[in-house]
Amino acid sequence: MIDLHFSPTPNGQKISIALEEMGLAYRIIPYDIFAGDQHSAAFADISPSGKIPAIVDRDPQFGGGPHAVFESAAILQYLAEKTDLFLPRSGRARSVALQWLTWQAACLGPMSGQASHFLRYAPVRIDYAIDRYSRELDRLLAVLEHRLGQAEYLAGDEYSIADIAVWPSRAAAVEMGFDLSAYPQMRRWLLAIGERPAVQRGRAAERTMPEKYRRRRANLSPEEWQNMFRTDAGRRPPEADGAPPRNPPEENG
Amino acid sequence: MIDLHFSPTPNGQKISIALEEMGLAYRIIPYDIFAGDQHSAAFADISPSGKIPAIVDRDPQFGGGPHAVFESAAILQYLAEKTDLFLPRSGRARSVALQWLTWQAACLGPMSGQASHFLRYAPVRIDYAIDRYSRELDRLLAVLEHRLGQAEYLAGDEYSIADIAVWPSRAAAVEMGFDLSAYPQMRRWLLAIGERPAVQRGRAAERTMPEKYRRRRANLSPEEWQNMFRTDAGRRPPEADGAPPRNPPEENG
Repeated sequence: MIDLHFSPTPNGQKISIALEEMGLAYRIIPYDIFAGDQHSAAFADISPSGKIPAIVDRDPQFGGGPHAVFESAAILQYLAEKTDLFLPRSGRARSVALQWLTWQAACLGPMSGQASHFLRYAPVRIDYAIDRYSRELDRLLAVLEHRLGQAEYLAGDEYSIADIAVWPSRAAAVEMGFDLSAYPQMRRWLLAIGERPAVQRGRAAERTMPEKYRRRRANLSPEEWQNMFRTDAGRRPPEADGAPPRNPPEENG
Repeated sequence: MIDLHFSPTPNGQKISIALEEMGLAYRIIPYDIFAGDQHSAAFADISPSGKIPAIVDRDPQFGGGPHAVFESAAILQYLAEKTDLFLPRSGRARSVALQWLTWQAACLGPMSGQASHFLRYAPVRIDYAIDRYSRELDRLLAVLEHRLGQAEYLAGDEYSIADIAVWPSRAAAVEMGFDLSAYPQMRRWLLAIGERPAVQRGRAAERTMPEKYRRRRANLSPEEWQNMFRTDAGRRPPEADGAPPRNPPEENG
């Protein structure tokens, strides 16, 4: 049994989709990230950076008791190696899959997060930052489109954890106003993956959570904003716990 | 023989250090990223996202001719699996090493990059962004300090590619004014790794490059700024090549 510490974000969806694709038994432990559930000391022992998602595998192959894994790309690789699915054990295709998995984790994911912050959540409108991150995201989508013109899937002929990592980003890109119809290869790939039954089950997994964990919030209260974006929230060492933010925004956008 | 497509950045240094640690034969192919060398079509075939470093392994274990790898964390894992060094083949320590490797690639690296951009390179001073990224970097350094209080190295008892990935960040943090003396565990770890002969050789590797590739530039010319930060530079598809930036900064900081 795998515990999935989860909130309904693109990063969370990667893991529920992977668990469904791999046929692993799991249960969802829901977090209300707007309420700050992710800043607890108990969760820091599972995910030292205080980020959702994380897993605890109660039955790791190497024995020795429960094993916690944080960072969604590391979770995907852990699960792929546990099941020997969606990541070749060796060879060129393994390396290519890990390159695109890393590209999502290091480029597409973080830059999408920054674009989202300045487009949707920053308390003041900052044109320079909006322009910087919108253009970078646009550039990265062109890199993705180019790759999907070379191969059916990111790693080549076979669906892999790289596709599982990138696919849930589409919703965030659409919400931010990026026009994916300009990318025919991406459209082909998005539709093909979206038809996979396990992907549909993974997307639907959040419906098992109580309603309060599933709300999408556009206008955050000051407290919700702090829980999401106060970057010292939940930080260690403990003396910082509960300390007020150094420079709280006056209002939210 | 491995070709290392290189410029003297923390990401580049990760790979020269790893190649020295692993005893692999390599040659440095230098890039002047301020001159825009990384935006060539030839390099896009090696590194689709146009980022340095990348490698081409002319003798991959799986045969079939040269193999290109981009994204520094993916390069580190590729080299570790090629040599069976600095990443356990299986077990809990493998998973822990991959978690911290991913954390560097997905959190510490990108957030350090954003802090550096707004502190050192943005053409206008934007207090909100400086505060956002400085605080996030501060929080991430506290996460690192906490981890190094639990274990000698990031993955546990053994030095791994996770340490190689994080170690070169220290110079960037110091340049940005972060006071690392506030972090005793990090200090212990930085010093211990810095004493490794292979780390010293990896740091010195850039000295083999002609002088023009080794300059650190603080005040960029408008053209150098464009080459570094014009996010549509070098993007595919080709019709965008050479197009002027949509909103160039008037001057640089």
